[in-house]
Amino acid sequence: MSLGFQVEVRAGAARAARLTTPHGEVSTPVFMPVGTLASVKGVSQELLEDLGVEILLGNTYHLYLRPGIDEIRRLGGLHRFMSWPRGILTDSGGFQVFSLSDLRTISEEGVRFRSHLDGSTHLFSPESAVEAQIGLGADIIMAFDQCPEYRANPEQQRAAMELTLRWAERSKRYFEQHKNEVPWTRKVQDFESPSSGHGSEPGLLPLGTGAPASGLAGQTQALFGIVQGGMDGALRKESAERTREIGFFGYAIGGLSVGEPRTMTREMVETTLEHLPSDQPRYLMGVGTPEEIVEYANLGIDMMDCVLPTRAARHGLLFTSEGRVSIKQVQYAGDENPVDANCRCRVCRRYSRAYLRHLYRSNEVLAQVLNTLHNLSFYLDTMRAVRHSICAGRGARSLSEVWSRTKP
Amino acid sequence: MSLGFQVEVRAGAARAARLTTPHGEVSTPVFMPVGTLASVKGVSQELLEDLGVEILLGNTYHLYLRPGIDEIRRLGGLHRFMSWPRGILTDSGGFQVFSLSDLRTISEEGVRFRSHLDGSTHLFSPESAVEAQIGLGADIIMAFDQCPEYRANPEQQRAAMELTLRWAERSKRYFEQHKNEVPWTRKVQDFESPSSGHGSEPGLLPLGTGAPASGLAGQTQALFGIVQGGMDGALRKESAERTREIGFFGYAIGGLSVGEPRTMTREMVETTLEHLPSDQPRYLMGVGTPEEIVEYANLGIDMMDCVLPTRAARHGLLFTSEGRVSIKQVQYAGDENPVDANCRCRVCRRYSRAYLRHLYRSNEVLAQVLNTLHNLSFYLDTMRAVRHSICAGRGARSLSEVWSRTKP
Repeated sequence: MSLGFQVEVRAGAARAARLTTPHGEVSTPVFMPVGTLASVKGVSQELLEDLGVEILLGNTYHLYLRPGIDEIRRLGGLHRFMSWPRGILTDSGGFQVFSLSDLRTISEEGVRFRSHLDGSTHLFSPESAVEAQIGLGADIIMAFDQCPEYRANPEQQRAAMELTLRWAERSKRYFEQHKNEVPWTRKVQDFESPSSGHGSEPGLLPLGTGAPASGLAGQTQALFGIVQGGMDGALRKESAERTREIGFFGYAIGGLSVGEPRTMTREMVETTLEHLPSDQPRYLMGVGTPEEIVEYANLGIDMMDCVLPTRAARHGLLFTSEGRVSIKQVQYAGDENPVDANCRCRVCRRYSRAYLRHLYRSNEVLAQVLNTLHNLSFYLDTMRAVRHSICAGRGARSLSEVWSRTKP
Repeated sequence: MSLGFQVEVRAGAARAARLTTPHGEVSTPVFMPVGTLASVKGVSQELLEDLGVEILLGNTYHLYLRPGIDEIRRLGGLHRFMSWPRGILTDSGGFQVFSLSDLRTISEEGVRFRSHLDGSTHLFSPESAVEAQIGLGADIIMAFDQCPEYRANPEQQRAAMELTLRWAERSKRYFEQHKNEVPWTRKVQDFESPSSGHGSEPGLLPLGTGAPASGLAGQTQALFGIVQGGMDGALRKESAERTREIGFFGYAIGGLSVGEPRTMTREMVETTLEHLPSDQPRYLMGVGTPEEIVEYANLGIDMMDCVLPTRAARHGLLFTSEGRVSIKQVQYAGDENPVDANCRCRVCRRYSRAYLRHLYRSNEVLAQVLNTLHNLSFYLDTMRAVRHSICAGRGARSLSEVWSRTKP
């Protein structure tokens, strides 16, 4: 499949579209689960497929440190390494370098940082971040950007935006020169051990991939630019316009959800969207709550990702059509109801709140597995319902509106 | 279904049988995965069904402490609590009291012990242990026994055996008086919240159970006696004969795998089996390695359980048809082969050693999930192959014999 983005229906500012990637189609607006280290924590790839996940996110910073880009590249890329046949997006590593690494020095060249794992020193530059992402072979990759702190002063904000623009040009230039080095084109049989007996078995996937390598020959990744500009509408406008001038397959809005009030996030999203092309994908990075993802889709955002559903699940916080459930609470002891009576996920169809509370209190690993499954299902169902509303020409303004329609 | 045990085929000392429980049939010889706290660590009940698990084990001691027998009984028993429609066996709690609790005092009455969780004091007696197991509502429950230490002297071994026999009588007496108090007979609709909308949905299981309560009316659990006697053949014989005199549905061999050499375990198993009825189930508690479960099935054992496949999985130790694989080892970096080329489990069909090594090294929860799935699959496939060999009239003397037949 060739890269593509086709808006199908508009409802106000919102739109339902079809994003075509070398590893399948993605119906937008879409929520992308976060699979930091080539795994959505606790959930197998079979279950992600079963949930209807069409694209997930990998973190370049983490994968660069462990297991390393070379290992993944040699194995044919991230899809094959983790056995995920559908879409993948990788971030540039910039955000994690700023938030996780011990020591970082920003220069025109890039960011020198120390690994949070072993203290070793590394450099991420626009070139090396794109090189790493080509090695990982995600379908969608990001230009290297500088995400300034929320409290940065206006001069720092402008400097970060300008640096991000220069890095965007360098990212694009490196990408154009090297985009044919994506590791998908290694033939499947290169990877099969003659002794394994796999691949020749009827009905079995070739180990580690769902797409025959031959169908990917000549395909390339899609590179997205990132709009910065802090909480300054004029700077956001300038960043959007100048990033467009460089020209990317899609555009991300970065530097939000960094501590600012949500009204400001929303204002910055609206301002930025005005200056992004209406026929290309728009990706809002690192948001949000179920309420927020509905709201942003309604504003015209096509793609979102967030660790919230998976991280909250690990802390026993479950999202439902009737609000949050903190499953550890004593009120759920003996409660035979499902987490959410309106939810049709595997967890709500089979397990009671009493059981989920017991698992959580007992530190059973299954608590994380089931809680994560439910939360992801809730996010994905929410987004599908939003898309459905858009396709029906109405859109959906709020989470409660989305879910009130599904009640029996 | 009424309780029953039907030997179908014998091959030497080994036999293939069908054990009928109120929650379904179990083909023996069978390996029972351990679900200590109402969960086989990391594996959902859907996946256990998919693995072909027909019976699993719960630990009375752990469930008594958390979430407590009353909560599970009020919810209709362990099957319903954990949403497991097939067979369950609970141990008596005796072994855990001896191995886990901080302080224990054995008297004629029972064992007073301190919880390993909060230091609170409790008493397990034959009556209270059976009462707890009736409250949990497993299909097969165990008489309360004393498991002496491996290093106990002959007088202590005899005393433990005699006490176990007196406790067996009291266990049976209590069971006969209270066996109709099993919580299965609560009607399903008693548990359904009218607002949940579940149960009425076509194609959905009633929440928390797979078997309609109506089919269980009048059914009772099966009580097993436990043979003790340390490493003394004469004492084992006496224990077996006197336990038979009391009379149970089936007989367990306890007090083995407590530190003795494996040749001695085998000798004690053989000695004890000579004195157990040939038309009733025989359960060897707490064994073993893949090699051992084949060997014991060959000696005529019908049921086994062990934490080894699940616990080893958490430490990255995988069992395969070609030996152990310690997945953390550097030799598996970049190794695209499946864990076991002869294995057809979900893990071996989809994921490479390189990926599993990465998950383990990165402390990803999915490592535990996938490793446990593979090991359980390997144990269950091994046992199914042994049963197949018995049904074919040959039996299987060793693990390598079992698996050599499956190679392409």
